[in-house]
Amino acid sequence: MSDHIVRSFDQELEGLRRSIAEMGGIGEKMLADSITALVRRDATLAQAVIASDSRLDVLQRELEEAAILTIARRQPLAIDLRETISAIRIASDLERIGDLAKNIAKRALAVSGQFEHQKVVLGVQTMSERVVGQLKDVLDAYTAHDVETAISVWERDGATDALYTSLFRELLTYMMEDPRNITFCTHMLFCAKNVERIGDHTTNIAETIHYLVRGQAIAAERPKADRSVAPLDADT
Amino acid sequence: MSDHIVRSFDQELEGLRRSIAEMGGIGEKMLADSITALVRRDATLAQAVIASDSRLDVLQRELEEAAILTIARRQPLAIDLRETISAIRIASDLERIGDLAKNIAKRALAVSGQFEHQKVVLGVQTMSERVVGQLKDVLDAYTAHDVETAISVWERDGATDALYTSLFRELLTYMMEDPRNITFCTHMLFCAKNVERIGDHTTNIAETIHYLVRGQAIAAERPKADRSVAPLDADT
Repeated sequence: MSDHIVRSFDQELEGLRRSIAEMGGIGEKMLADSITALVRRDATLAQAVIASDSRLDVLQRELEEAAILTIARRQPLAIDLRETISAIRIASDLERIGDLAKNIAKRALAVSGQFEHQKVVLGVQTMSERVVGQLKDVLDAYTAHDVETAISVWERDGATDALYTSLFRELLTYMMEDPRNITFCTHMLFCAKNVERIGDHTTNIAETIHYLVRGQAIAAERPKADRSVAPLDADT
Repeated sequence: MSDHIVRSFDQELEGLRRSIAEMGGIGEKMLADSITALVRRDATLAQAVIASDSRLDVLQRELEEAAILTIARRQPLAIDLRETISAIRIASDLERIGDLAKNIAKRALAVSGQFEHQKVVLGVQTMSERVVGQLKDVLDAYTAHDVETAISVWERDGATDALYTSLFRELLTYMMEDPRNITFCTHMLFCAKNVERIGDHTTNIAETIHYLVRGQAIAAERPKADRSVAPLDADT
């Protein structure tokens, strides 16, 4: 293989990594802004979050096409093939994270003017701050090929799920206390669920980094909080 | 290219198609069985649905690996490349459909013994029968490379979303009427949401078939029911 071809293959991989970095930045900002829009009842910010999702969709589609062309043209092996496949997988998780943040922003619009229960919103905010941290760390781990950080993000997801379960129960209690809370709390229930699912996608990215660096899947089961007592939320 | 190599490339594509057919069969059955488990309060059936999800995960991972190896080894062009990429995308949608059906089955277990509201369960059942029909049709369309059927499935998703929105409102009403309904109705809310998302994945598969056969994306926006009056469910 000529030096020219080798160099341009590296450039292709570098291009994929840059796209992931851009997508990661957009996803992080969308999640943080969607929660801010929810807390502050900021319709303009919510609209901005909704608008930025299409950029993420375009980037994902472009990255997927570029990565598949790279595989077809270069026939990469071992680490280079894993690098290309990992980029496809992470882009797909980031695209889903964007969709979920967009859903939160839409709910921020839907609840504006409704009966307010600030304590509940703060619960969603606390949970999302955790997940924003996980997302930030996992993107840094991807850039640095840092499998230890990826594993620590992966391990933290159990605590996020536990937080979600506790918030879920709290929301049910408010709904039972006063029927006027029901519509608002239902929206918050879905917001919390969206944040929890963003946590799952963050965990997926951590698994992909493990596969990328070590060449194999994380052996253990995905960490789950124990909720055997009362499976109030069965999805997680 | 020797006749032998051409033949074995066809065999590889045929293998991908067979895996999709197997995954589609499992996904369809999981959705139908999860709803039956919910309607009949059948814990054994719910457990069977939950258990069958791992087979779908394994098939998806295997298909993805096989498809990427095919791309790397064969460097397929045009329709053959689209065939391989489409298989990866559809497998990913089917794997997600399995996850969502598993979530419904887990909720079927969670609500057993709870306050019953059969009318609500029937609403979820009606919606899921529509989606099972869409899934069946889209899988047939994939086998037959039938883009017209794919487009008709794609167009039907708007009506499914409308059904979901109406069920969502009905559930809120029951919750407001009597606090004892809240926990049960919340589970049904998430079940309905899961069915609605399975409908979205069915629509994704229809879009992939369009790309596979015609070589380009469906031009129009994804069909959405008009819910501008009151965006009660902002996700859809």
